[in-house]
Amino acid sequence: MTDTPTAAMIVIGDEVLSGRTQDANTQVLATMLGEAGIDLCEGRAIRDERGEIIGAVNALRARYTYVFTSGGIGPTHDDITAEAVADAMQTPISIRDDARAILAARYGDGETLTDARLRMARIPDGAILIDNPVSGAPGFRLGNVFVLAGVPQVFAAMLDHVRRMIATGPVMHDVSIPCPYPEGVLGGPLTDVAAAHPSVSIGSYPRLKPTGGWGVTIVARSRDMQALERAEGAIHAMIDGLGGSSTDGE
Amino acid sequence: MTDTPTAAMIVIGDEVLSGRTQDANTQVLATMLGEAGIDLCEGRAIRDERGEIIGAVNALRARYTYVFTSGGIGPTHDDITAEAVADAMQTPISIRDDARAILAARYGDGETLTDARLRMARIPDGAILIDNPVSGAPGFRLGNVFVLAGVPQVFAAMLDHVRRMIATGPVMHDVSIPCPYPEGVLGGPLTDVAAAHPSVSIGSYPRLKPTGGWGVTIVARSRDMQALERAEGAIHAMIDGLGGSSTDGE
Repeated sequence: MTDTPTAAMIVIGDEVLSGRTQDANTQVLATMLGEAGIDLCEGRAIRDERGEIIGAVNALRARYTYVFTSGGIGPTHDDITAEAVADAMQTPISIRDDARAILAARYGDGETLTDARLRMARIPDGAILIDNPVSGAPGFRLGNVFVLAGVPQVFAAMLDHVRRMIATGPVMHDVSIPCPYPEGVLGGPLTDVAAAHPSVSIGSYPRLKPTGGWGVTIVARSRDMQALERAEGAIHAMIDGLGGSSTDGE
Repeated sequence: MTDTPTAAMIVIGDEVLSGRTQDANTQVLATMLGEAGIDLCEGRAIRDERGEIIGAVNALRARYTYVFTSGGIGPTHDDITAEAVADAMQTPISIRDDARAILAARYGDGETLTDARLRMARIPDGAILIDNPVSGAPGFRLGNVFVLAGVPQVFAAMLDHVRRMIATGPVMHDVSIPCPYPEGVLGGPLTDVAAAHPSVSIGSYPRLKPTGGWGVTIVARSRDMQALERAEGAIHAMIDGLGGSSTDGE
């Protein structure tokens, strides 16, 4: 497991923390990383403040193989992510010719390439540009930090490029097993199953059914397919051996 | 602004980081806190691991007025939040009579109050129970940390109780102003408006319209209603003064 790449996500934006917007980018990233065999280990949502961005970037880039940021790279005054990431990594940042050329191709080189739009050509020295096929203005990779747009369609499009820039790991396999018994009944036996299969991560997730009452899904995950199949068999045997039921939930 | 209460959210659960589940609790909390005049300043999603929980709880409870956790308080082996929070705050934890009585009233005191279910009666010494009208098993408040369930319906129901336990602050007012011009055009003038209204937080949020093309919403927020109204007037005047338009986005 030591060579499994790890990752963290930083969602930058007051609009998520105010409740105005629901972050959807973390789930999209998590799904892509899962397919690439990379563990998303932590997510953070932080304010549009320079010190917050610097603190989060430095805490997480030291700890994980990859760090992804979402938001704050547009042309307005509250878009401060690129500069803050450059500051965090003590790298100079300026309007780069390659990024300017991308914007000029989109807007023309006349007055529609406003000063505000030129802010989107500010890229740290040495950073690798990340394609934005939706709206032009690129993201970038600096060291192990990937700076992406916040608009979900642009974020997802940039991930298509990112996918080709990162090292993949052994894929995590998973099985979901619906369970007719509540957690309070299966909790004890499931603890025994989990202890007997240490290379498999086993979780149970209760949910309120639309029709009322509780349903539980048991999810088992492992990079070892054979170990996963053994655990799956043990979970089915456990369910078959259980009796009794009552309402329950977290 | 110094007496505005602040808050952080910790979403505990591998299911969010694996992409299997979309966290909805942060947005529900953010909305409740906004109505109470409390700033949600940071959100974190972390794994079901003791060290991760302890680290996040201690980092955030020192920094913010209130910390909320979501997830990991059910009856199964992967429900470790209550013990980890107690450990973080160096507080003994055991099956408490008041919590046991709540569970006994729900399940009866016979064999349906399983050992697994009794795990949900493990409450730190001195913690205040938080009602769970949906499924019985309580949450708790220990110091400035509120430990709540992960199931969205239970989380929301617990918040109804939490709302009565916290100090409120001056409410943040906001206005949303649709803008017909793209960010690349409005970026410069909006910077000037923001600079002229320092007590108002002004953000602009591009989005792809279902019909194609970009729309922008300008959001202005302030606890000072008169300052907000002045900024709103300035934003409308700025929009009226703008000409030109083209495709743009983050």
